[in-house]
Amino acid sequence: MNLIIDVGNTSIKLAVFEEEKLLIKKVVLEEGLIEAVNNLNKDYKNIKHVIVSSVGNLGEDIKAYLTKNHQVLYLSHQTKIPFKNLYATPNTLGIDRIALIAGAVNQFPDKNVLVIDAGTCITYDFINSKNEYLGGAISPGLRMRYKALHNQTAKLPLLDTEAIESIIGNTTKTSINSGVVNGLTVEIDGIIAQYKEKFSDLTIILTGGDANFLSKQLKSSIFANSNFLLEGLNFILLNNISE
Amino acid sequence: MNLIIDVGNTSIKLAVFEEEKLLIKKVVLEEGLIEAVNNLNKDYKNIKHVIVSSVGNLGEDIKAYLTKNHQVLYLSHQTKIPFKNLYATPNTLGIDRIALIAGAVNQFPDKNVLVIDAGTCITYDFINSKNEYLGGAISPGLRMRYKALHNQTAKLPLLDTEAIESIIGNTTKTSINSGVVNGLTVEIDGIIAQYKEKFSDLTIILTGGDANFLSKQLKSSIFANSNFLLEGLNFILLNNISE
Repeated sequence: MNLIIDVGNTSIKLAVFEEEKLLIKKVVLEEGLIEAVNNLNKDYKNIKHVIVSSVGNLGEDIKAYLTKNHQVLYLSHQTKIPFKNLYATPNTLGIDRIALIAGAVNQFPDKNVLVIDAGTCITYDFINSKNEYLGGAISPGLRMRYKALHNQTAKLPLLDTEAIESIIGNTTKTSINSGVVNGLTVEIDGIIAQYKEKFSDLTIILTGGDANFLSKQLKSSIFANSNFLLEGLNFILLNNISE
Repeated sequence: MNLIIDVGNTSIKLAVFEEEKLLIKKVVLEEGLIEAVNNLNKDYKNIKHVIVSSVGNLGEDIKAYLTKNHQVLYLSHQTKIPFKNLYATPNTLGIDRIALIAGAVNQFPDKNVLVIDAGTCITYDFINSKNEYLGGAISPGLRMRYKALHNQTAKLPLLDTEAIESIIGNTTKTSINSGVVNGLTVEIDGIIAQYKEKFSDLTIILTGGDANFLSKQLKSSIFANSNFLLEGLNFILLNNISE
């Protein structure tokens, strides 16, 4: 069994896989990580390999704890990856984006794939049918937009995410919801259209914490898969174990 | 002569009008406001009326200074405005948005007008050909998006605004520029398309600090006018003086 640890900007996702099969998934905060891994080790006795993907910095105590009990692969720019990275500055490509592209290669080999990860940020990542990763874009995520409107202005409130009934908001709340939810939806639909113009036979994956919410709003036809990054990490781990 | 003071989220704009003609425009920070008004009073001896629009809070010392020398109209939800406000919560409609709609009424009477103000926030405001303001949307502005990506993540840098060469960024910098600049452009073009579907004969105004930069990126045909809010404030002031 494999344990996947995905340290994001706001929370940590844990998953246990048996070969390619996802057995369980959990979301914790950093301070709860050791206890959560402990509990998973009790429930799943056969966890041997661990892959850690971190966009931030992971504490030394947690690293020591993991190394004591498992064979740990820290995903880095030196890790063997299952695609050709044509990024001009490969060492600055976010670790999370590497995992997403690996997921695309695993599930849609030899296809043009655009992976849209709707998390803290919206990342767009494109890999072509020749297994070459070309790059993409990074845009503010759904919650980031709500927070920015509140944090960077004097008077706008911090709102919860809410689907809109009309594109014309007639209160502060419905105006912000329209600007954030409809704005982001229109942005994603528009960027998908730009890629479709450039690349025929395009497969589009929508993943990340806001994938389910956003997929209901989008006009474009997409595959929504909230486990895509975890599956990509597991695929990288399997590739590296079999060496 | 009229002095217009527009206190925004990040800076203060000053303008002197003679009737409907803009004579001079300045941008200052709050701490430089009194000195700037002083200088304008020296250069333009006939400034009698002042209108102040503030989305934040203006200091009491500045208010006292203005009242001593001028007849001051503080734009509020009680001010007489030249359109019918159908906002469900009219007392929460941003003062700056009231000024923008007044500008639309002044320059395009009896038209369907969408005013897009690209400042700290992107505000969308729609007034129909019957002089009824229906509402709109509030979305994060260009710089707000760059700042949010930096402030709300562990590793992304704070970048300067830059036009993109490709929608597929292949460095952190070009990925962020694509996500912010192309993302916002696609969003604005998409929202314009949504309004065009709903309302025939639509006039679109793009104003605010980022109007010039964004107008070059947009596909939609728009009127770019960076003085639209100031002109709207002057129009409200003229309407209230003539009482």
